[in-house]
Amino acid sequence: MIVAFSVTPLGVGESVGEYVADAVRVVRESGLPNQTDAMFTSIEGEWDEVMDVVRRAVDAVAARAPRVSLVLKADVREGVSEGLTSKVETLERHLGAGS
Amino acid sequence: MIVAFSVTPLGVGESVGEYVADAVRVVRESGLPNQTDAMFTSIEGEWDEVMDVVRRAVDAVAARAPRVSLVLKADVREGVSEGLTSKVETLERHLGAGS
Amino acid sequence: MIVAFSVTPLGVGESVGEYVADAVRVVRESGLPNQTDAMFTSIEGEWDEVMDVVRRAVDAVAARAPRVSLVLKADVREGVSEGLTSKVETLERHLGAGS
Amino acid sequence: MIVAFSVTPLGVGESVGEYVADAVRVVRESGLPNQTDAMFTSIEGEWDEVMDVVRRAVDAVAARAPRVSLVLKADVREGVSEGLTSKVETLERHLGAGS
Repeated sequence: MIVAFSVTPLGVGESVGEYVADAVRVVRESGLPNQTDAMFTSIEGEWDEVMDVVRRAVDAVAARAPRVSLVLKADVREGVSEGLTSKVETLERHLGAGS
Repeated sequence: MIVAFSVTPLGVGESVGEYVADAVRVVRESGLPNQTDAMFTSIEGEWDEVMDVVRRAVDAVAARAPRVSLVLKADVREGVSEGLTSKVETLERHLGAGS
Repeated sequence: MIVAFSVTPLGVGESVGEYVADAVRVVRESGLPNQTDAMFTSIEGEWDEVMDVVRRAVDAVAARAPRVSLVLKADVREGVSEGLTSKVETLERHLGAGS
Repeated sequence: MIVAFSVTPLGVGESVGEYVADAVRVVRESGLPNQTDAMFTSIEGEWDEVMDVVRRAVDAVAARAPRVSLVLKADVREGVSEGLTSKVETLERHLGAGS
């Protein structure tokens, strides 16, 4: 499955980049396929391994902030692998065909 | 922590109430404090117990649908208990004070 | 349609109840069917009227906070009215039937 | 502000790429800075222009599906421009500094 998630610390001011970096570091060190843009970090894998990474990413932020807000969206579909790239390729193919 | 989540099955038609019911049934049988409205089901507990319920709720839906979309928002804050009711009470107090 | 949304101010500390109250006050004064629990406020109406309320709710929080995070989930379905109550009734019917 | 959103049609089967393509086409034709990955499309601009694009993207999908689920996360912050790239640059700087 693919999980996109975002972690926001509260009580540490409005600039939260260094806290988010702690979360992204956990994701990158996990070895799972991942990608980060301005709003979300996406990870691909099985439920247990992905959620373990999300939990440790939240813990890394919670270690330095009194409150953490987590937003997560998951696409759970059997038999799909390399979804981080294949979903975008499928989309671009539809966009090309329809133009 | 409090987790609000929503499970949406894809590939089973536009009326998804009976599938969502399978997810809510798992939540209610968990014994954790919970509440369901038109858009989300909220659960309160520790990460492991809450996420185990969410996972089993997703599995219950995925057992009958080829694809499931999960949306989740968590409020992770140490030392808060009975947050499902206390957060609303705090809010109403502010609304009363400010009117 | 039904919109569930949550507004989180950043840069004002970890206790955000009084800021959230400003947002909920805008919703309640809108006259649209609405409901607030520990995690989300739901509103029912047409796109323009609902999004106008969400925007003014965000503005009310942004007036006192340097940064605001908005999370929103919408269920867009023609021909459904009183969805805030009817969706829950449908769900409970399925839960009753399946037990 | 930056808005990341995801549109999911219900009642059209489990493969929704061609419907999502209709939404992304609206975004790309808007002229606003945007980016699409496997889970979300992000757009940057003022509230009115961004929400107008989101609305038309939802309408494009709703034209061919009986029900549409919209998930949206917004980062509302005055005085930030080119956030789609600058937020990632800030993050990478923190990641580099912390390694």
